[in-house]
Amino acid sequence: MDNPFLVEVTRGPLVESRHRGSVSVVDADGSTVLSIGDVDRRVFPRSAVKALQALPLLESGAADTYGLTDEEIALACASHSGEPEHVRVAQSMLAKAGRDVGCLECGVHWPMGEAANRALAAQGGTPNALHNNCSGKHAGFICLACGLGEDPKGYVSPNHPVQRMVREALEDATGACHTMENSGIDGCSIPSYAIPLPSLAFGFAKFGSGAGLSADGKAAAARIRKAVAAHPFMVAGTGRFDTRLMELLKERAFVKVGAEGVYCAALPELGYGIALKADDGNARAAEAIMAGLILRFLPLDDEMRAAVGKMAQPVLKNWNGIEVGGLRLTPMVQG
Amino acid sequence: MDNPFLVEVTRGPLVESRHRGSVSVVDADGSTVLSIGDVDRRVFPRSAVKALQALPLLESGAADTYGLTDEEIALACASHSGEPEHVRVAQSMLAKAGRDVGCLECGVHWPMGEAANRALAAQGGTPNALHNNCSGKHAGFICLACGLGEDPKGYVSPNHPVQRMVREALEDATGACHTMENSGIDGCSIPSYAIPLPSLAFGFAKFGSGAGLSADGKAAAARIRKAVAAHPFMVAGTGRFDTRLMELLKERAFVKVGAEGVYCAALPELGYGIALKADDGNARAAEAIMAGLILRFLPLDDEMRAAVGKMAQPVLKNWNGIEVGGLRLTPMVQG
Repeated sequence: MDNPFLVEVTRGPLVESRHRGSVSVVDADGSTVLSIGDVDRRVFPRSAVKALQALPLLESGAADTYGLTDEEIALACASHSGEPEHVRVAQSMLAKAGRDVGCLECGVHWPMGEAANRALAAQGGTPNALHNNCSGKHAGFICLACGLGEDPKGYVSPNHPVQRMVREALEDATGACHTMENSGIDGCSIPSYAIPLPSLAFGFAKFGSGAGLSADGKAAAARIRKAVAAHPFMVAGTGRFDTRLMELLKERAFVKVGAEGVYCAALPELGYGIALKADDGNARAAEAIMAGLILRFLPLDDEMRAAVGKMAQPVLKNWNGIEVGGLRLTPMVQG
Repeated sequence: MDNPFLVEVTRGPLVESRHRGSVSVVDADGSTVLSIGDVDRRVFPRSAVKALQALPLLESGAADTYGLTDEEIALACASHSGEPEHVRVAQSMLAKAGRDVGCLECGVHWPMGEAANRALAAQGGTPNALHNNCSGKHAGFICLACGLGEDPKGYVSPNHPVQRMVREALEDATGACHTMENSGIDGCSIPSYAIPLPSLAFGFAKFGSGAGLSADGKAAAARIRKAVAAHPFMVAGTGRFDTRLMELLKERAFVKVGAEGVYCAALPELGYGIALKADDGNARAAEAIMAGLILRFLPLDDEMRAAVGKMAQPVLKNWNGIEVGGLRLTPMVQG
C-alpha cells in the first residue's frame, strides 16, 4: 500500500518537494477515529514515547522518593536543546539520586539548539552527556534504578530491570507486544521497539484520558501531563515545535516528536491519541501534519486557530527574509 | 506516476524510513541512458547548477580580466561550509573586482559547517554575507557584472544583465526554456527555474564532454571542471559529500548537490550527465543515490569501489558509536 501525500513544499508557483506518511487517531476505547495510509507497518516510535517510558519513574514511587519537581519530570520526557536550564535540571535529577554525569550512558553530542551550541563554544566549553537531548530521560532512568535499589550501571540494556519495566509500561499502554525481533538501538543506546501506529495512538489515548490504566498509572500519566504543560520549555527548548505548541495549548494537548518523522499526541478532552510518521523521516512534515490534525480535531477559537495554523502551514523565507514558498497540507490531513 | 523507492534507511532488522525519487542519466547526444520515475515533472535545480551558472563568468572574459585563480573559480561553483578558507577566497574575488562584502546580496547565515560555526562563535564573531554558502557564486556574479562594465547593484534580479546572461547559459546548456512561470526565488535570492531532469542531465552531459557547446563554452566548462577537481574543498568543505567524492574521483566525476534533494553530475569519460531528485528533498537520499549511480556507471578499481560504496550505503552509528542501521539502495538504483 502506497502512503498518500500529506505535505507539499512549494516554491513560487510550483510544488518543490512532497512528503508521504501515515496517521492513526484512536479514541480511549481503541476505536479508530482516523486512519491514513498503511498503519499496519511497524514504526519505531523513538523519542515520541518518552512520556510513556517515564511512567515507571512515577508509578514506582522513585519520583517521590527523590522529590522530583515538575520541571524535572518534564525533562524526563524531553528531547531537549541542551540549553543551560536543561543541563541544570538534568544535573539536579542525578544529584537527588546521589549520582552525577558519569552515570549517564546516552553518549555525548553538542547541544541540539543552535544558540546553545554556539554559546557553549563561545565559552570555550565542550559538551558532556548532560547536553545530550536525552539526558533528562536517562537521569530519570537512573533515578528509577536507584529508587528500586538497583545498580544503575548498564541501565540502557534491554535486560536491565529499568528497561524491562519500561518495556512493560509500553506494552501495557499500547497493548502491543514489544519483541526483540522488532527492536533496534536508539540514538541514546536504549532499545526502541517498532509497533503499528494504531497501538501507539491507543497508548496516547490512554495516557491522555487515563482510561484503561491502573490507578497508579492514571495518576502517573496525569502528573506527567500537568508537569509538561506547566514547563513546555523543558520538553524541547527555545523555538522548538513541541514547546511552541504546548505553550499555546497547555493541558489541552500533549505532543512529543520522535526522530525519523514520528509524532505522537494526546488530546485529553477528546480522549484521542494520535500517532503519525512521515515515510521519509522528515521532521518538517511530521510537525506540519501534527499541527494540522490538532486544527482538525480540537475546537479552537479564532486566535488559537490562526496561531496553530501558522505552524501547520508555515511560510518559508530565504536568507534575505523574502517569502519563497511554504508548507501546504493536503486534504487528506485537513479533512 | 508514483516515483519508486530508491533508498531505505534501516534500524536493526527493519526499514525505518524510505525515500522515493526520480533519476535521469543522459549522454552527450541527448540519448537516455537511464530513466527512473516521473522525469517529466519540473525540478528546481537550486545550487546543483552553480557550475553552469558560472559559465558566463569565464566565457565573458571577466575571470581572466580579474585573474581569477582555480580556487576562486571552484568557489564560484560552491555551496561552501563557511570555513575560514572559503571566506578568504570569496573576499579575494570581490577585492579583484574592486568590491567588498557590502556588495553581496545573498543574505547572511552562520557557517553551514558545524566546526566553522562553533569556531566563529568561539572567537566572539558574528557571520556576514561572506559566510553564506553561496558567497563564492555571488562574488562571481559581481566579477561578471564589473567585467561587463555593469553596476553590480541588483545583480540578483532576473532583469539584471548578470541574471539574463546566467539564464541564457542555462537555456543553452540544457536546451530547456527557463520561464518566469516556472521560476521561484532561491535561498540566496537569485531566480531558480524549474526544468525536467533529462534537460538538466543533458546540460551536465554537455558540460562534462564539451559536446554541443560553443568553443568558448567548451573551454569555460573544461576550466571549471579542472579547477573544481583541483580544489574539491572549495566546492563544499570539510567532510562534505561533494568534497569527499571529488577528492576520490578527481576529474573523473564532477558532482554538485542542490537544496531539496537535488544532485547533478557529469562523468566526462562516458559523456554522461546525471540529474536526480529525492521527492522529499532529503539530502541523505540524494547523496546515496548519486554515489550509487557512480558505482553503477563508472569503471572503478576495487579500492575505489569500496570507498564510493561506503558513501552509497553508509553505516549509521549512534552517539555511543554503536552501529544502529544504515542506508540501503534499492535495485532500481543499483541496476
